[in-house]
Amino acid sequence: MINNVLIIGCGLIGSSILRACSKKKAAKNIFVKEKSISNIKKLKKIRSNFKVVDNLRNIVPKMDLIVISSHMSQYKQIIDSINIHLNKKTILTDVSSTKNHISKMSKKELKKGVAWISSHPISGSEVSGPEYGDANLFNGKWCILIKDKRTNENKLKILSKFWKRLGSKIVIMDAKKHDIIFSLTSHLPHLIAYNLIQTATDFEKSKKYNLLNFSAGGLRDFSRIAASNEIMWRDIFFSNSENISKAIDLFIKNLKSFKQIIKSKKNKMIIKKLKEAKKVRKKIIKLKHDINRPDFGRN
Amino acid sequence: MINNVLIIGCGLIGSSILRACSKKKAAKNIFVKEKSISNIKKLKKIRSNFKVVDNLRNIVPKMDLIVISSHMSQYKQIIDSINIHLNKKTILTDVSSTKNHISKMSKKELKKGVAWISSHPISGSEVSGPEYGDANLFNGKWCILIKDKRTNENKLKILSKFWKRLGSKIVIMDAKKHDIIFSLTSHLPHLIAYNLIQTATDFEKSKKYNLLNFSAGGLRDFSRIAASNEIMWRDIFFSNSENISKAIDLFIKNLKSFKQIIKSKKNKMIIKKLKEAKKVRKKIIKLKHDINRPDFGRN
Repeated sequence: MINNVLIIGCGLIGSSILRACSKKKAAKNIFVKEKSISNIKKLKKIRSNFKVVDNLRNIVPKMDLIVISSHMSQYKQIIDSINIHLNKKTILTDVSSTKNHISKMSKKELKKGVAWISSHPISGSEVSGPEYGDANLFNGKWCILIKDKRTNENKLKILSKFWKRLGSKIVIMDAKKHDIIFSLTSHLPHLIAYNLIQTATDFEKSKKYNLLNFSAGGLRDFSRIAASNEIMWRDIFFSNSENISKAIDLFIKNLKSFKQIIKSKKNKMIIKKLKEAKKVRKKIIKLKHDINRPDFGRN
Repeated sequence: MINNVLIIGCGLIGSSILRACSKKKAAKNIFVKEKSISNIKKLKKIRSNFKVVDNLRNIVPKMDLIVISSHMSQYKQIIDSINIHLNKKTILTDVSSTKNHISKMSKKELKKGVAWISSHPISGSEVSGPEYGDANLFNGKWCILIKDKRTNENKLKILSKFWKRLGSKIVIMDAKKHDIIFSLTSHLPHLIAYNLIQTATDFEKSKKYNLLNFSAGGLRDFSRIAASNEIMWRDIFFSNSENISKAIDLFIKNLKSFKQIIKSKKNKMIIKKLKEAKKVRKKIIKLKHDINRPDFGRN
């Protein structure tokens, strides 16, 4: 069990860490720093054992672990506010969805000798805010820990143990690989969802057709992830724009080839494509990354 | 209540019509024509009152309603087999997902005086086969009926009443409008899902990265609709290729503009885009076209 943990920024992920920490006894003393007054009100309804702190000066030096779970665009400001108070024994982590940017920034900004080991628990949702937090959010989900040549093995072990205690399964990789993988499995799907919704609404406006009434044929699936928090996703798109741009190009190439196939009615090619996609769904279900009920079981 | 109804092709939709017909007393006598032996075996397990028929010659002339719910690519063959036996009082319908093609084909192939009024119940799923059929599949869902200047008003009323009896809400439009709307709300989302899965697997092969392990960040949502039946979707893509191609072009245009926005980090523009998409999700939920639980309630 970790002695003192400080969670900076307490939305969906932060408050889930808080709840899991308390429920699963992953830390003895839990401190929370949250700047939004409305979020603090919501936090006070949580029946876990923790303390909301305002001034970080006296708290930061005593921490064994600090988890930054605010929006990425606030990291720099947060580092500035805690940097001089940081103790070298403290493990600093965050839960951001892109890592190259954070890795460069932390190397540049953090005072020497402080260990920043970045985490990415794969457990987001289209909802945000502490009221949606869940002590079981991380159960059985992957948490990626970022390792580079500077990473302290001992601290990595402690952080890994912490996430396991919260319910996560651990995988370790470097920031570069992380950002490439997630540009395809998460960032591209999200931006496609946003653009699909936009294409439909652009069209709706120009044609005066009521498209949304007929969204059950596919569009509604995409609208779910397009409802995700806009600040979080702006930060992701901006900080991983290079990998994402490459993913967009790859995707456009595939779309163009698909258009040719349906225009020239190439039977064998299309059946092959559609069957392959089906196999992938089966793999995802076999890997238990989605449930095996029609329509996600929502009806 | 309709006296005699014949369902030709009895997969997910056909067997749902059969179950709903029986449960909701929408027809007195239900006949089913199904060519797949394995499907016939599955149908025999359904505890509804219906008769599987083999020879259509004696059955077709007595029918008040014939519902074709096989794959679109089989329609021509089905028409050929029933055409000479068709009675002018019979209402002929189908449940295909594209309408222009069917409308042209029926005008060309059907014997004069026979009424084909096309239906599109918006209630598909990624699963197929009669075992997934559900008497309540149509409850509260839209069913689009296609009307043109030749449509017999009286027969349209009877068909509309039939679908309402099965639980559907009715909307009437012409084939052209139908195919444009669904190119955006259903066909484009499906082809995007197929291509996204392909982009991810292409990449996985070339980089040897295990992407599927991290599909919970977005990709898995798309894999659901990419698991839909490949014959059905080939038929949809081929028969509505013109509208779909236009939708692809529109979508690629939006993608390219999005790429520029993230490359040049245009803050206001991206926040506006992302917020608008969120509004659409809210509308879809307000319209009750999707459930309002995070992650579709699947976790």
